[in-house]
Order: sequence, then C-alpha cells, then structure tokens
Amino acid sequence: MERNHLPIGVFDSGVGGLTVAREIFRNLPNEKIIYYGDTARVPYGNKSADTIKRYSRQITRFLLSKDVKAIVIACNTASALALDAVREMTDIPVIGVVEPGARAAVSATSSGRIGIIGTSATITSGLYDRYIKEMMPSAQVFGKACPLFVHLVEEGMLDDSVTVEMIHRYLDDLIKNDNIDTLILGCTHYPLLRSVIAREIGGVFSGYTKELPDAGGASNAAVSGEGKITLVNPAYTTAMELSQVLKECGLASEAPVSFSDHQFYVSDGPDNFRAFASEILELTIDNVSLMLTDQL
Amino acid sequence: MERNHLPIGVFDSGVGGLTVAREIFRNLPNEKIIYYGDTARVPYGNKSADTIKRYSRQITRFLLSKDVKAIVIACNTASALALDAVREMTDIPVIGVVEPGARAAVSATSSGRIGIIGTSATITSGLYDRYIKEMMPSAQVFGKACPLFVHLVEEGMLDDSVTVEMIHRYLDDLIKNDNIDTLILGCTHYPLLRSVIAREIGGVFSGYTKELPDAGGASNAAVSGEGKITLVNPAYTTAMELSQVLKECGLASEAPVSFSDHQFYVSDGPDNFRAFASEILELTIDNVSLMLTDQL
Repeated sequence: MERNHLPIGVFDSGVGGLTVAREIFRNLPNEKIIYYGDTARVPYGNKSADTIKRYSRQITRFLLSKDVKAIVIACNTASALALDAVREMTDIPVIGVVEPGARAAVSATSSGRIGIIGTSATITSGLYDRYIKEMMPSAQVFGKACPLFVHLVEEGMLDDSVTVEMIHRYLDDLIKNDNIDTLILGCTHYPLLRSVIAREIGGVFSGYTKELPDAGGASNAAVSGEGKITLVNPAYTTAMELSQVLKECGLASEAPVSFSDHQFYVSDGPDNFRAFASEILELTIDNVSLMLTDQL
Repeated sequence: MERNHLPIGVFDSGVGGLTVAREIFRNLPNEKIIYYGDTARVPYGNKSADTIKRYSRQITRFLLSKDVKAIVIACNTASALALDAVREMTDIPVIGVVEPGARAAVSATSSGRIGIIGTSATITSGLYDRYIKEMMPSAQVFGKACPLFVHLVEEGMLDDSVTVEMIHRYLDDLIKNDNIDTLILGCTHYPLLRSVIAREIGGVFSGYTKELPDAGGASNAAVSGEGKITLVNPAYTTAMELSQVLKECGLASEAPVSFSDHQFYVSDGPDNFRAFASEILELTIDNVSLMLTDQL
C-alpha cells in the first residue's frame, strides 16, 4: 500500500518543538505533520529518565494510532533519553534531534572543541557527547545546562538585560576557558535566543533557512568571521535528515500540502499554544485540539 | 473510632509545599503528615483550571486511601482552582492556603490596598481578590503574576542580581503606583525570597515563626516601621488555621511525633526532592517514596 501520503508524527514536551516543525514546513513542503505537544507535563528537562521514557511511549502510541509514516522526536530531552524506547515500539523511521545536531556540530567545528547547551536532563544524559565522539573521536565536548533559558523564552524575554546576564553566566566559561568554536543549541527553545546569543558571544549561524527572520528580528543569513563561534540548530539538520530518510525509504510525498493539512494536539491549554505559536514563532495555528494524556 | 492519631494529608505541585509543611512541623508538633508532591507534573501555575482540578482530584484520592483526617492544599494554584473540587470528594476538613492568606492580609493592612503575587493561574483565578473583598469590602486588591520567581528559587538564585532585577520589574509598580501596604506571597516558593523582597521593596514580615532563619539567611523576626510593606506568608496562617480546625473538630493529636513519622511521596525524582529539601529548606528527608501519577 502506498504510504507516501501519510503524515509525519512530531512530538515535543510542549511548544518548543514547533521550532523543529517550522523547519519541516519550510524544507519539506510536501509533508504534512501531526504534532503532539505535552503542554500539561512540560517541562521534561528536569524529570527522570524513567518518566521521560514513559511519557514518550504514551505519545508514540497516540501517533502510531494516527498511522504516521515516520516519527520525529522534536524534544532534545526526549531524544536524549527515550529514542531507543520509541524505536522499540515500531518499525517506521524514528528520528531524534540529537544525532543530527551532533553531526552538524562535527561538520562545523575546526578545532574539535564543541560546546553543548541544553536542559539538565539532556546534559546529564551525555548523549550528544557520545554521538560526537563516535563521529569524531578526537573531539572535546563541553556541556552546560542552562535551565533558565526555557523560562526566559516562554516569558517572551528574548532580548532583555536579564537574558543577556544569564547568557554570560552560562556561556562565558565555555567561550573563554574551554575555547569552543562550535555551540549546539540543544533545546528547542534556544534557537529563539540565537540572535542575542550570537551578539553576546560573537557567534555565527550554521544551517539556518536563509531568508527567514528569527523571533529576535535578526537575519538568519550565515555570516562567517575569524574567531567566531558557530551556533548549530539541530532543528534544521533534523529536517534535512528527515528528508533524506523519507527519500531512502521511498516514503517522500510529492504533492504540496497546505498549512491547514497539519494537525496539532496538546495535553493542556490550546489557547496558550496558539498564542505562543503566533507571538513567538509567527505561525497562525487554528486547528489545535486538546488530547488529554489519560486518553493517549 | 478515635481519629486524632491519623495523619494530615498535604499536597502540592512539587517541592514548594514543603514551606507549608515546615510551618505545620513547627507549629503543630503533635501532628504527622503525609505529603504528596507532584514533581512529575510541576509546575501547575501555567496549566488550565480543568487540568489542575483533575490532578488535584487524583492526589486527593491517594491521600484519602491513606486514611488522613484532614487535607491541606499547600499549593496556591491548586487552592485557588481546585478547593471546591477536593471538598466535594470528602467530608473531612480541607484547607487551602488562599483563604488563610487573604485573612492574614486583611488583618495586616491599614490602607486596605493589598498586593498579591503568584503564578499566572492563581492571579487569573481572582480568588484572593474575592476572599479579601468578602472580608473587607472596601479593600483594593492588586494582583501581579511573577512567573520567573519559581524558577529562580528552584535554581537556588535566592539573593542574586537577576532575582533583584526581576523583583523590581514585578513589584515596583505595586509599590510606587498602587501604593499597597501589604503584599501576599501567594506561591509556596515566594517565602524563600522574602528576605530579598523585603530588602528591595522595604518590607517587614508578618506571622513568621520567630526564631527561624530563612533560606536567605535573614531573621524571620517581625519588625515594624513607618511606610513599610507587610509581607504575608499564607503558609504560616494556614498552619494556624489547621490547628484551629483540628481543635474545633476534636481531631487534634496530643502525642508528639518525630520527624520520621512523616511520610513523603513524589511523582518523580525523589533524589531531587530530597536535595531541594536539604539545600533550600534545611530539612533532612530520608523517607521519600516514588508514587507515579498513574498509580494514584
């Protein structure tokens, strides 16, 4: 049976995964998605591995019931801790954001000194580190949990003196002492801070869709410069990897879809989800349904 | 049957309710508690009313199964949104923190201009406002959601330049334009910031257990001063109300309990719970059990 027309399941702990969905919309215009945001139980970043696996399995069950042809785990934390658990449940392709993010960093680094920022759970998992060293055994990886960033983004404090202060507290050591030349934005919320991070630490972007302004108003256009830190957004490379996997598996769709073909489900607060999508991501999402986690 | 020896059920969205439990330990030394912290689904402050009610009912079922003689909803958000839902489930006394907090503010204010800070859900509920106006119809109530405070406390940033900056952003308008003389710390995490808030806005404490230092190191001793803002901690007045209700219902226990008689359950991460209790509240809690929300 022809499966190319089936949707792609995308899930996240909440709204942040929309930064990944957005890269899919832009770069795979023929694919429709079913997005599940676990807004009732967000954030995942400070939960235990067992809980993150259990929640990811519940959501995967729901997506499989919708007959998706592939699953993208848009959440870094769930990708770091539940990728294997999800893969065990199905034979369809399952793509997390960690491996594509690690690959992009390895291709971007010159010195092999790579920084990775994310939630406490993502950093503690050490998974970015493992993937990077598999691809580049000589690499040195420096992880730093930045727990306040998610909340600063959710409060819309994208370019704000408090955010700038926290950027320096979290990142100065990576830049000045660890001498990284590449920084992975290892949490779906962080790309929304990329302009401010770039300005503050002297960074350049890697792998962004060029024409699109980010929420902070800066251009995504990659610029290059001596002694600059390359900022890697796993969302973009994940969309690229999804594209490749769909082609390899003969699952790519060839008919363009319209935005209203996408479906969005959340476990709480559809209105907040819509508002965040509109205000922070400039996405107008009308068709958001509430789907309680007990019903998954 | 004699029910005085039975425990008191206390629940919260996570660790914050320990500030209420701590007031019970200090002021009701004959009572043992069973605490449930919903650490897997924390925070409640930005969830919908329906979700907060559903979660509160699940936890109440669990506490009732433990044969508690009374229930304290230590979470301001759950008190504001789910008190009636919990009371409908049982005939035992159910005490939230909102009504005691409102009563303390009414007795503290001179001008009738009362500020209330809390989570978005608590402030939006308008419940503090309603209780205050029932008790003091001439009162003017000014609410302000302070969503970052919880995260700053959870990161241990109790006296920190970023926290100070956010205190001024959130509170200066209440002080300078709304001219409040009383401020309710309407979220269980906020009392941990009370020394810094008091220093920054010129506040004095109301109703604290006198001899105990707070996490910021300042004394709790109430001092009085001209033109000062009285900071009200609902945790203390809730413990006082619990004491009174137990006496009135003939349910008070007369035999002292030891700390190891208390039982603690969390829905995720017992180690994090223990660490927060130890580092932030100076409570050594050894007997924390994991009780998943699916098992409630």
